[in-house]
Amino acid sequence: MKIEEYLRSRAAEVDAALVELIGEYRPKVEPKLLEAMEYSLVSPGKRIRPILVLAAAEAVGAEARPLLPFACAAEMVHAYSLVHDDLPAMDDDDLRRGRPTNHKVFGEGIAILAGDGLLTEAFAVMSRDRAAPPVERRLAAIRELAAAAGAEGMVGGQTADVLAEGRAADLPEVESIHRRKTGALLRACVRIGALLGGADAASLERLSRYGETIGLAFQVADDLLDEIGDTRATGKQAQRDRARGKATVPALLGVERARGLLRELRARSLADLDGFGPNADPLRGIARTVVDRAL
Amino acid sequence: MKIEEYLRSRAAEVDAALVELIGEYRPKVEPKLLEAMEYSLVSPGKRIRPILVLAAAEAVGAEARPLLPFACAAEMVHAYSLVHDDLPAMDDDDLRRGRPTNHKVFGEGIAILAGDGLLTEAFAVMSRDRAAPPVERRLAAIRELAAAAGAEGMVGGQTADVLAEGRAADLPEVESIHRRKTGALLRACVRIGALLGGADAASLERLSRYGETIGLAFQVADDLLDEIGDTRATGKQAQRDRARGKATVPALLGVERARGLLRELRARSLADLDGFGPNADPLRGIARTVVDRAL
Repeated sequence: MKIEEYLRSRAAEVDAALVELIGEYRPKVEPKLLEAMEYSLVSPGKRIRPILVLAAAEAVGAEARPLLPFACAAEMVHAYSLVHDDLPAMDDDDLRRGRPTNHKVFGEGIAILAGDGLLTEAFAVMSRDRAAPPVERRLAAIRELAAAAGAEGMVGGQTADVLAEGRAADLPEVESIHRRKTGALLRACVRIGALLGGADAASLERLSRYGETIGLAFQVADDLLDEIGDTRATGKQAQRDRARGKATVPALLGVERARGLLRELRARSLADLDGFGPNADPLRGIARTVVDRAL
Repeated sequence: MKIEEYLRSRAAEVDAALVELIGEYRPKVEPKLLEAMEYSLVSPGKRIRPILVLAAAEAVGAEARPLLPFACAAEMVHAYSLVHDDLPAMDDDDLRRGRPTNHKVFGEGIAILAGDGLLTEAFAVMSRDRAAPPVERRLAAIRELAAAAGAEGMVGGQTADVLAEGRAADLPEVESIHRRKTGALLRACVRIGALLGGADAASLERLSRYGETIGLAFQVADDLLDEIGDTRATGKQAQRDRARGKATVPALLGVERARGLLRELRARSLADLDGFGPNADPLRGIARTVVDRAL
C-alpha cells in the first residue's frame, strides 16, 4: 500500500472513532461543552499522532484496530493543547487549521473548559473497562501520555515558549522548547503504540529514538512551511511566528540549512527502523511524508 | 483519637507528601511553572479530598500510608480546578484561601498552564511505576478520577455554572451543578480509597453513597458559610456568589432550611456507614465536621 493511501485510510478510521466517541458523550454532557470539545477534536487534521500509535503497534507485529481508543486519546491531548495554546493569554491566535479558534467561537471560559475536558477524557478513555490490552500495558501507556503532556513535557514546553516570547532565544533553547512542546507527544505516541503492541525492550528503545527524531523533524518542517509562507499547508496564518518575534529553527538556521537538517533527520529516523521488517513500512512512509512536504 | 487530631495529623502527612512531590519535579521542570503549581497546591487548605482517600481505605481495613500518592493526585485535581475556576474568563476571583489567586500572582497564561500541569501530573503520579497497589486497582482509581474530573463531572459542572451565571437557576439545577462541580470529586476520593484498599462490592456501594452525601453536604455547608458572610472560614470573599447573582442552595432555601438539610445529610451519611466498624470512625468524624462548621 502506498503511504498516501495508508495515511488516508488510517485517518478515516481515526475520524470515525472520534465521531463515535463524541457521540457516546452526547446524552451525558453539557451540550455547549461537548460542542466546543467536538469543534476542536473532530476538525480537519492529518491525525499524525493517532496514526503513529497505530503504525508503531503494527511495526512490532500487533493488530492496530483494537488500539483505536488509545489513538483517539493521543488526538484528544493534541486537540486540548491547541485550544489552550491559542487562548488570548497564550499565543492569542484567531485561526487554526483554517478555521476560527475555539475561544473565538465559544468564548474564553468555554474554550478553557473544552481543553480541560479533552485532556481529562483522554485519561478516561485509556482507563476504560472495555479497552482491550492487558492492564500493565495500559497503565504504561497512561504513564507515557501523562509524562509527555505534563510539566516536563508539553506544559513545560509551552511555558518556556510563553516566557521566551519577545526576546531572542538561541538554537538550544528553541530545540528544548520544541522537544517538550511538540516532540514529547509525538515520541509518546510511538512508544504508546509499541508498548500496547507488546514491544520488547530493544524494539521499544529503537522506536523511542525514531519517535524523538520524527518529533523534531515534524516541528522543523512545520516552521519551515510557516517561514516560506504556505498558509494552505499549515492552516495557520503564515509568518505568524516571525511576526511576533518567535524564534524558530528555520529562522535561526536559515531556510537552506533547515532543509539540510530535515534531510538528516529523515535519514536518521529511517536508520532507527533498520532492524524492523516490512511491518514498519508505515513508520518509514510517515518519516518521508513529514519531511518531504517541506523540502 | 479525636477527629480534630486525626484531621490535623492526616493533613500534615498529605502536606509533607505534596512538598516532597513538588521537590521531585524541581530539577526537571520550568521554575516559573513549578512555582505556580506549588503556589496553588501547597497552599493553606483542609486537605479534605486526600484525607477522604486515606480514610476510606482505612474504613475497608487497608493501610493508608502507601496510598499517599493517590491522595496527592486528588488534591492536585482539586487545586487545578480552583486555579482554572478563578480565571477572569470564568469566576474572575482575586482571592482564594485568603491569598491572591494564581493568575493574580503569575498572570493568566502561566495560571492556565499551572492548572493544566497539575491536572496532567495527577495522572502521572497515579500511573507511576513505584506506586504500590496492584495494577488493576490503580487503573480503576485512574478511571474514577478521570470520570469525576471530566466532562460528565467537574468540567461539566463548571460549564453549567458559567452558563447559569446571571440568570435564576432553580434548586434541581443548582444541585445538579454541585453534584458535578464539587460532589463528583469528593465521591471519587472515597471510591478511590475504597477501591485501592480492596473493598468488596457491597462496601464500595455503601461508601459511594456516603461519598455522594458528603459531597452535597460539603457544598451546602460552604455556601451557607458564604451566605452568612464568614470570610475567615471560607477564605473567599464573603457573599461573592450572591453579589454576582449566583444561585446557591441556602439562597434558594433560606438559611434555616439549608441548616435542616445539612442535619439530614449528616444523618444520612452516618447511616451509610452503619455496616462498618470503628475503622470507619474517621469517615464518621469527617461527616460531622463538614456539617457542624456551618451549623
